[in-house]
Amino acid sequence: MAEKRKKIIAVIGGSEPSPEEARLAEEVGRELARQGAILVCGGLGGVMEAACRGASSEGGTTVGILPGDSPKAANPYVQIPIVTGIGYARNVAVVKSAQAVIAVGGSYGTLSEIAHALQNGIPVIGLNTWSLSRNDKQDNSIILVKNPTEAVNKALNIT
Amino acid sequence: MAEKRKKIIAVIGGSEPSPEEARLAEEVGRELARQGAILVCGGLGGVMEAACRGASSEGGTTVGILPGDSPKAANPYVQIPIVTGIGYARNVAVVKSAQAVIAVGGSYGTLSEIAHALQNGIPVIGLNTWSLSRNDKQDNSIILVKNPTEAVNKALNIT
Amino acid sequence: MAEKRKKIIAVIGGSEPSPEEARLAEEVGRELARQGAILVCGGLGGVMEAACRGASSEGGTTVGILPGDSPKAANPYVQIPIVTGIGYARNVAVVKSAQAVIAVGGSYGTLSEIAHALQNGIPVIGLNTWSLSRNDKQDNSIILVKNPTEAVNKALNIT
Amino acid sequence: MAEKRKKIIAVIGGSEPSPEEARLAEEVGRELARQGAILVCGGLGGVMEAACRGASSEGGTTVGILPGDSPKAANPYVQIPIVTGIGYARNVAVVKSAQAVIAVGGSYGTLSEIAHALQNGIPVIGLNTWSLSRNDKQDNSIILVKNPTEAVNKALNIT
Repeated sequence: MAEKRKKIIAVIGGSEPSPEEARLAEEVGRELARQGAILVCGGLGGVMEAACRGASSEGGTTVGILPGDSPKAANPYVQIPIVTGIGYARNVAVVKSAQAVIAVGGSYGTLSEIAHALQNGIPVIGLNTWSLSRNDKQDNSIILVKNPTEAVNKALNIT
Repeated sequence: MAEKRKKIIAVIGGSEPSPEEARLAEEVGRELARQGAILVCGGLGGVMEAACRGASSEGGTTVGILPGDSPKAANPYVQIPIVTGIGYARNVAVVKSAQAVIAVGGSYGTLSEIAHALQNGIPVIGLNTWSLSRNDKQDNSIILVKNPTEAVNKALNIT
Repeated sequence: MAEKRKKIIAVIGGSEPSPEEARLAEEVGRELARQGAILVCGGLGGVMEAACRGASSEGGTTVGILPGDSPKAANPYVQIPIVTGIGYARNVAVVKSAQAVIAVGGSYGTLSEIAHALQNGIPVIGLNTWSLSRNDKQDNSIILVKNPTEAVNKALNIT
Repeated sequence: MAEKRKKIIAVIGGSEPSPEEARLAEEVGRELARQGAILVCGGLGGVMEAACRGASSEGGTTVGILPGDSPKAANPYVQIPIVTGIGYARNVAVVKSAQAVIAVGGSYGTLSEIAHALQNGIPVIGLNTWSLSRNDKQDNSIILVKNPTEAVNKALNIT
């Protein structure tokens, strides 16, 4: 008989985070592992690497969905590299594979992932990240939180 | 000998535009055709259909890059339907195929296209669309314009 | 009112064809253009370039669905480059965009396109190309023809 | 410090296998798990489910790279569903994520995966599957084996 699946949470963010963002991402990874969730991310450096390092340090499982053609591009804390070869179209797969998405900082790639998540009705929890308005009206879809523990609690309990 | 290629401009926007947005999109399509550019879009309804209708009415060429598995989903003004079968990952192809992107209104799908364009260094011209800020700092990458003619002029001359 | 769409036929084949295969592909392109069909292909060199050159020489329309990130990779006879950025996953889009596929020679990339076409119920017409058997039983799904004119006639009339 | 990654092997094959093919696939899954490899597959039924069931029964890790938009389509023995939303373009990711591919039976979808693997230089081991010839010359790229144990041994030691 198959067991119940673990929850999968995506951590998204840029490859050149501030030290504070890297610290936040690592703590998000640690907390996800402590609470038994699988971490999925884009598999590269920066926020992705920090989150995977955190999760690994607590014995968690890490999956990196890579844009390129080789598992060698994965950061060393990715345990399961998925090699898509589809470039940044893989951003869609990163968010669709998750029950919720935690965004830490990030640039336009992260923004595209936030947008794809919201388009698919997948909750986005934000730490120091984008805010959006449309036609001068604030869009409050991103759930703002104050710290990594709150981010993980929201991500695991919202869905 | 091969001829010089025509410029290709993407028009992006939602499938449920306001009447004003549909009017803007149609005029963008007309002006693109008048200036000899090829229009590329996501191929479906709403802003995409209005833009294709405008371009067709002036004898322009229209390409629709569809998310699904059948050309039947294309709006009737798409002359060349590209059937990708890759879902909303096709948003990346819509913007990468263009020298510049004109966004009219739009929801999260459009936001993902704006983000993918900016990530790839492709200029985005905006009419009544998203505005962005990151970590409470306004991001001014979207070039705001006042009307369809200005949008098309910017799109064709910026690159 | 929107006009009836032209038929779209894909020409697939390797980037390093024999001189005979290049000749066949060019003649396929010419005949497609003469019969008013739009040619879609993978946009690169070899069979794809020969087919586009043939179609262009007869005033036909050519679309190249490129794997990479830049229209510069397109052969000079591609009039409308679609820049997917999804690598060889774009092979799926090449065949799905067509009512029928004409394969000229080709290596494993071509074989993947033949397979994707057959999986989607899109007829494949073969000139000097792969033949298949499964569990030692010949698979006759590829329609074998003797020359470019027969290939184009089959492609345009089979669907 | 990051640990050395486990080997990842793809098992591909149709969703409607013969009873014998299902038995072979299940034994392939079991043997992969016994030898400590991670199993990646397309995540759906038939050969994919049999292989995942086998791997799960021996405590192995199973990853399903799904074509659609929901993890619910995964067979019950997939522990980590990757939701790509890119349809059968996900076949490319299935094979590129693996050091080697084991094909059991299969129809055109499997053939496309074999072709994408060979195009990328990823070894393909075949059990009761396709055989190929090009221009009437046999192509011997698929490594034929007689049983699941030999398939797994080849897959793990060839690379």
